[in-house]
Amino acid sequence: MTSPQAPDRIATVILSGGAGSRLWPLSRAGYPKQFLSFSGGPTLIQQTARRLSGERFSAPLIICNEKHRFLVAEQMRQIDCDPAGILLEPFGRNTAPAAAVAALHLLADAGDGDPLMLIAPSDHVIADEAAFLAAVDRAARAARRGALVTFGIAPDRAETGYGYIRRGGALEGAAEVYAVDRFVEKPDRETAAVYLAEGSYFWNSGIFLFSARTYLGELERHDPAMVAACRNAVAASRRDLTFCRLDQEAFAAARSDSIDYAVMEKTGHAAVVPVDMGWNDLGAWSALWDIGDKDDDGNVVLGDVLQHEASGNFVRTDHHLVAVVGLSNVVVVANDDAVLVADKDRVQEVKAIVERLKAEGRGEHDLHTTVHRPWGSYRGIDRGERFQVKRIVVRPGEKLSLQKHYHRAEHWIVVTGTALVTRGDTTFQLGENESTYIPAGEVHRLENPGKLPLHLIEVQSGSYLGEDDIVRFDDVYAREADEGCGGE
Amino acid sequence: MTSPQAPDRIATVILSGGAGSRLWPLSRAGYPKQFLSFSGGPTLIQQTARRLSGERFSAPLIICNEKHRFLVAEQMRQIDCDPAGILLEPFGRNTAPAAAVAALHLLADAGDGDPLMLIAPSDHVIADEAAFLAAVDRAARAARRGALVTFGIAPDRAETGYGYIRRGGALEGAAEVYAVDRFVEKPDRETAAVYLAEGSYFWNSGIFLFSARTYLGELERHDPAMVAACRNAVAASRRDLTFCRLDQEAFAAARSDSIDYAVMEKTGHAAVVPVDMGWNDLGAWSALWDIGDKDDDGNVVLGDVLQHEASGNFVRTDHHLVAVVGLSNVVVVANDDAVLVADKDRVQEVKAIVERLKAEGRGEHDLHTTVHRPWGSYRGIDRGERFQVKRIVVRPGEKLSLQKHYHRAEHWIVVTGTALVTRGDTTFQLGENESTYIPAGEVHRLENPGKLPLHLIEVQSGSYLGEDDIVRFDDVYAREADEGCGGE
Repeated sequence: MTSPQAPDRIATVILSGGAGSRLWPLSRAGYPKQFLSFSGGPTLIQQTARRLSGERFSAPLIICNEKHRFLVAEQMRQIDCDPAGILLEPFGRNTAPAAAVAALHLLADAGDGDPLMLIAPSDHVIADEAAFLAAVDRAARAARRGALVTFGIAPDRAETGYGYIRRGGALEGAAEVYAVDRFVEKPDRETAAVYLAEGSYFWNSGIFLFSARTYLGELERHDPAMVAACRNAVAASRRDLTFCRLDQEAFAAARSDSIDYAVMEKTGHAAVVPVDMGWNDLGAWSALWDIGDKDDDGNVVLGDVLQHEASGNFVRTDHHLVAVVGLSNVVVVANDDAVLVADKDRVQEVKAIVERLKAEGRGEHDLHTTVHRPWGSYRGIDRGERFQVKRIVVRPGEKLSLQKHYHRAEHWIVVTGTALVTRGDTTFQLGENESTYIPAGEVHRLENPGKLPLHLIEVQSGSYLGEDDIVRFDDVYAREADEGCGGE
Repeated sequence: MTSPQAPDRIATVILSGGAGSRLWPLSRAGYPKQFLSFSGGPTLIQQTARRLSGERFSAPLIICNEKHRFLVAEQMRQIDCDPAGILLEPFGRNTAPAAAVAALHLLADAGDGDPLMLIAPSDHVIADEAAFLAAVDRAARAARRGALVTFGIAPDRAETGYGYIRRGGALEGAAEVYAVDRFVEKPDRETAAVYLAEGSYFWNSGIFLFSARTYLGELERHDPAMVAACRNAVAASRRDLTFCRLDQEAFAAARSDSIDYAVMEKTGHAAVVPVDMGWNDLGAWSALWDIGDKDDDGNVVLGDVLQHEASGNFVRTDHHLVAVVGLSNVVVVANDDAVLVADKDRVQEVKAIVERLKAEGRGEHDLHTTVHRPWGSYRGIDRGERFQVKRIVVRPGEKLSLQKHYHRAEHWIVVTGTALVTRGDTTFQLGENESTYIPAGEVHRLENPGKLPLHLIEVQSGSYLGEDDIVRFDDVYAREADEGCGGE
């Protein structure tokens, strides 16, 4: 999967780190924002990979949490993107260590070379791709001369939710690239208005371009321990199917910090490329209203929605009919198991709800009712005291592990596609409208031998229905025994 | 079922006519307000029947739309109430004809007698039952002397949503009963404030007490055609199991009108019994907030709700987690298939949503995802292009019709209880965790022979899954061929 970096191309590093908790209930820790589609088209990480697929760039190196690895792999497969690698973090350490392990990983294949690296978050949108690519070209010229370039978004409003970068003098030999005068924290409203009027302040986008050696060198100067930790984590990393797992113990030694704090604010080589490219970080539901198509009443509506005397609202629903009566400036988001109703001016506080869910140990902060697995997905559709019902979807060619359960029996009814079922010593096919029964204690396996997705209804029956009642004998996805693989 | 009226008891007539559309999405045309519980305890019609179960009263005569007959019968069964009769209207004609058919029905068993009738809507709450019963006793004394008595609620606020009754002079020989000075339509806010201060105005509760002959006599005087139509409808009524179906053609000739307009405003014998009894007609969601238990922030919450910086809200959810952020004075109601979000001061306008659903021919104005049948209920839990999945609940001792489907096969998996299954020529039992298969075209029947509810998961598979693909051979509930009996 790792292909040698073409020396004239820019290496791309996609960071899939955020939790997007302010976009709950759509975004959840187990399936965050970057893996979601907000437009009905490709997901944010897919948009990011596509944006970086032109001839300027090498195939992307993707850095994600290990629990998202199958999501990343599957979403890249869907858009025919073959990543240069998928680096798995055992836990998040913010962007500085992520960029460091990416740089080290790239240099391992680069010989004496010093590839340029474009660091791209995976959870924002860029409407004007041409403007972005032109900015990349400007940034690359400066980066080749040793600059550490950050992309500064030309503000179009007095935003108080972002940090700002004040540009300094123009860099020699690099058109429209400027030294960084200073980084400034999120301002209050008046200060933001001053910044907007002033014209030399830009939003900090979290997109960077520098050479691998320049970045590591600067990081080493300011935090040698972080580089040492990252070096050890990469050196002791191990291959797992198509993934590369960073060594957990070594990576734990890396301090958590951002590229901005750890390097950009300390180096003498920071530069900024101002760019106006329709950038939006979708930081909260109000941002979705900002970029959405509005009806005559200023409402942005997705899904089955009826409104009466309502205006300026953002209403999104996956399945349910949502009716809004006599309200303005609200956000309503409904999906399988949760409904959010919020003042559109206070959607930042959605985070407080997610924190409470987490503190209370509730699943709704982490997972949707549809749970994604390397072989497909499942969704709980009903449950009672001693039974539960699931719709299981297995992708063509995929198979669940060979397994058994001590406490539950399972009825399977194929409703779409074809299943290959192993039950004890026999293996047989089930077509649409056919069913089988797996008694408790029986070894079994489910597989989709066909060319179309297999959908089946599973009725589980038993005194204990926990996902941990599973004994795995063989798993093509090399999942570990202690890994939560609910519904397998 | 009809028991002779004890001559010294007051006959009670429960009107189950309203649609409660302002309490959508909980209340729906097919399962309206009076059949719902808003307190977790008995439903409104059950509360009404219990309130009228003391020694003063005969067993109730219940008048409902024919499509609600199994709901009425089942809800009365649940509280061990054996009604004197259940009169079925083919369509609603407002309260005046309903009271007339009730009077005629009572007189058919009364010989030369003239029973007192208490007319009670089934969709309001009365917190102070003792006050209600004391008012009944006062009203009965006046009614025995020929008065047509309406119950006037002592107002506790300047309400603009109700009609008012101004009391006149005290009736002789009947303590705390007054002649009606006049009926007044819903006032504006200033007028309502004047009424409240004045002390002689009362809300029109829709509860009446009069003798059957007095009511019919007054109605005959002012609208003889209505009495004739009702007389014909009762004369040509036919027995259907334990129900009495009014004749459709005859009843159609009765003008739609209320007791107030048709009789009370025209008669010279109208009287009012003022009463303060914690009456609430639950006319809209704000009324549920009014009577609900409030937390420290003035929120009334039912179900799984998290709020952050939210106050004065009414939030009710059946299954979903609902999170409210930064909003005050809103109503959020979520159930299986719909979510309502409304300004608490504009909940009357929920009606507009229901009207639109109806105009668009959508099911959400009429039915819940749980559909009630004489034998139990079913709920759609999943569906795809050529399949759907239902949870079916059959009450002990009940059975579905003997039937077949041309276009769909059915898989049944028993998850709780015991099923007796007829399939073609064979009949067999299925216990928990057992399953069977009904091919398309096969005659079959499902029955619960046990003492506990039977729950089964049905997976339907086929090219056409409409509820009208059913051929019925035998139905213990005597349902007609053209009657919508979805899921049978």
